[in-house]
Amino acid sequence: MKPNLIVMSHGNFCHEIMESTKMILGDIKGYETVSMLDEEGFEITSRKLEKLLGKLGENKILILVDLYGGTPFNIANIFLQKNNNIRLIAGMNLAMIIEYFSSDIEDMDILINEIIKAGKDNISIPILEEDNDIDLDE
Amino acid sequence: MKPNLIVMSHGNFCHEIMESTKMILGDIKGYETVSMLDEEGFEITSRKLEKLLGKLGENKILILVDLYGGTPFNIANIFLQKNNNIRLIAGMNLAMIIEYFSSDIEDMDILINEIIKAGKDNISIPILEEDNDIDLDE
Repeated sequence: MKPNLIVMSHGNFCHEIMESTKMILGDIKGYETVSMLDEEGFEITSRKLEKLLGKLGENKILILVDLYGGTPFNIANIFLQKNNNIRLIAGMNLAMIIEYFSSDIEDMDILINEIIKAGKDNISIPILEEDNDIDLDE
Repeated sequence: MKPNLIVMSHGNFCHEIMESTKMILGDIKGYETVSMLDEEGFEITSRKLEKLLGKLGENKILILVDLYGGTPFNIANIFLQKNNNIRLIAGMNLAMIIEYFSSDIEDMDILINEIIKAGKDNISIPILEEDNDIDLDE
């Protein structure tokens, strides 16, 4: 079975990136979001994640967070260090979320490598079209 | 002068990633967002971007979009091909937005390389802490 997905961020970014994913992939299921809202800090967000992990039990869990070294990352990292069933990737973008849902891979390490590759490959600039108006006098 | 920043996405992802940025950097200015909402398609979103570009005039403009090959990307790419003052990076994540605001670099090519590097570097897994409970009998 594929790991369950938890998407975590400063603010509602994690919620909205999932809404964007639905605009592309249609209705998707099997994920949870943890938003660290403005008035919430480490403690409250930590309890939100703890409650969610309690609900998911012994399932394999993949957590995607918005920023390496940010508070959501630090919170997820604490649970990661204590639980063998949890894995964590920072720096999420839309391509990584789409890769998670598009992939059939169940092996956590291979899936993580695929998601990281998809995310990094997507960060790119477009190829400029050839200029067809070349001035032959120059 | 640094280029103006436009952040574009499927849905309100672009708005929320800026709200997350403010949670980290405080109040920031000098950017615009273009959301392609559910009921909007290529045409309406294209007109939204066109109107914004008209407002910004001859300024250098850096557009960050959510996904290479997605509709916001395709729209921005059309304007990019026609305007020398516009540049485009796909696959945005939070580290890329933070890099834009943290950087003092005004040269567009150097700034773009820095933003791409920041985005890719941030996509990573945490280092597992050393296990201090090594069983010496094993």
